[in-house]
Amino acid sequence: MRPHEDDITAWFHQQSRIDPSLFPIGIGDDMAEVCLGDAASVLITTDMLLDGSHFDLTTATLEQVGYKAMVASLSDCAAMATVPLAAVVAVALPPGFGQSRLKQLYAGIALAAEKYDCPLIGGDITSWRQSHPFAVNVTMLSRRAANAPVRRNGAKAGDAVCVTGSLGGSLLRKHLAFEPRVREALKLAQTVTLNAMMDISDGLSTDLNRICEQSGVGAILDAASIPISDDARTLADPLAAALHDGEDFELLFTLASEQCTRLMQAWDDPTPISQIGRIAEGSGMKVRMPDGRMAELTPGGYDHLNEPE
Amino acid sequence: MRPHEDDITAWFHQQSRIDPSLFPIGIGDDMAEVCLGDAASVLITTDMLLDGSHFDLTTATLEQVGYKAMVASLSDCAAMATVPLAAVVAVALPPGFGQSRLKQLYAGIALAAEKYDCPLIGGDITSWRQSHPFAVNVTMLSRRAANAPVRRNGAKAGDAVCVTGSLGGSLLRKHLAFEPRVREALKLAQTVTLNAMMDISDGLSTDLNRICEQSGVGAILDAASIPISDDARTLADPLAAALHDGEDFELLFTLASEQCTRLMQAWDDPTPISQIGRIAEGSGMKVRMPDGRMAELTPGGYDHLNEPE
Repeated sequence: MRPHEDDITAWFHQQSRIDPSLFPIGIGDDMAEVCLGDAASVLITTDMLLDGSHFDLTTATLEQVGYKAMVASLSDCAAMATVPLAAVVAVALPPGFGQSRLKQLYAGIALAAEKYDCPLIGGDITSWRQSHPFAVNVTMLSRRAANAPVRRNGAKAGDAVCVTGSLGGSLLRKHLAFEPRVREALKLAQTVTLNAMMDISDGLSTDLNRICEQSGVGAILDAASIPISDDARTLADPLAAALHDGEDFELLFTLASEQCTRLMQAWDDPTPISQIGRIAEGSGMKVRMPDGRMAELTPGGYDHLNEPE
Repeated sequence: MRPHEDDITAWFHQQSRIDPSLFPIGIGDDMAEVCLGDAASVLITTDMLLDGSHFDLTTATLEQVGYKAMVASLSDCAAMATVPLAAVVAVALPPGFGQSRLKQLYAGIALAAEKYDCPLIGGDITSWRQSHPFAVNVTMLSRRAANAPVRRNGAKAGDAVCVTGSLGGSLLRKHLAFEPRVREALKLAQTVTLNAMMDISDGLSTDLNRICEQSGVGAILDAASIPISDDARTLADPLAAALHDGEDFELLFTLASEQCTRLMQAWDDPTPISQIGRIAEGSGMKVRMPDGRMAELTPGGYDHLNEPE
């Protein structure tokens, strides 16, 4: 489904005749940017979360869902190293949903809004005529920090590829209660020059592929350097979970080698950073497996190559 | 359902601790406003439209639905006399929806985007795991024109109550193909001082009640002055249709009596304007019926009073 989304996104991008002086960042990044006069601009992201797809109301509480809907968008603000400003939320309610359940949802929204200083400033409440599931759409605005927003298309051959935190197994627990890397992203952009960044929402292999395709480069990862989460370690194939599982909401970024060295020396945040590989000339992704053999890495999967490199 | 939405909106409004210096307009108007530094600000509105509630894909085309989703939000920009800037669109697709149907939807979005100079700059495509209906969420940004955004809470006793166009019977045709009153709203705000304005999305009686409640005033309408649409005239009770039908997407505004006189002399736009009543001290709405008797007007209905006034 996700490659399908990428195809149609590329098609929309071709169709759109957007003036880059008014919209410096359009379709294809985590947020779009709108210029507002000489010095001001605002960034915007919108995300629809559906019961049965992004959460399951038979096991998750509405407070968890409200929190998740907000932090997923906050993670988009972090993905470009921008400062969250405000959110609007629209909901589609099953018949008979009732005000008390709406207030539970709001409690989760308010928790994230307060924690990340990103207030809810408007919304829309609508109801299905017949029995269909709950859906929630969050649209979030952010503003530039001192840096320019970090895009997906700036990775350069030779760059170090890094991630925050640890990866894999998010669906076991983390996807409902993660911490979007807003602080970390701003600190990163203050400390070094980032060439490309996004948040890992669809899995490391899928999202790194997006950076590679948009930057016109390839990548080689080192499996032994990938930080595997404790939850992923309980699964049958922890490395595969770290490479391919969605909803990690960690930052994936690339930066020049000497910048990476400087970053590793300067970084004093409790959230760890790991270098997991390098950007390479050409295209395609590879991963050096723990046994030393190289495998071709594709979005959501990998194929062992015949010869070690 | 709508009074329910107003109740919960009021509750959200109470809960929110929004800094008015950063967010001069918050929950309760057609758009919220976010300040961005000294001179700049942006306004935002979000709306969820559902198959079976806001349109019916057994009779409407996806192009019509894309157009409607955009012009409904453009109508919110008009409601405050602001200038549309850009839109982001999120969709929830039934399984097997397919790219060609997505492109039909996009054709309708692009039609409205081009016509009203409000490009699509981003979005989100997601799918139901099981068979559930199509939903589309549009979030739109606008900017201030020379005037301050016109709010719902500024109506004053003695104001003239006016509407653009004609009212009622929208569901027969107009709701899928209306013209949002963007040009008219900007022209109105340039010509005179508007005290309160909104677009009529839930019906004249429901929306005028919102202006009255938020402004702490009442209103008296003159049924004979209400412009009844040709479609409403084909219905059993044309006046009731004009008073209560939703989705007219005309402008409803109030302004001082002398400003109204000036407006009527100066107005040279093809879209007609009609004065339909006056704002009164106190609270509640009344309508002078064609037979001269006064009726109490409530959101979505009216009760005949015993004594003429």
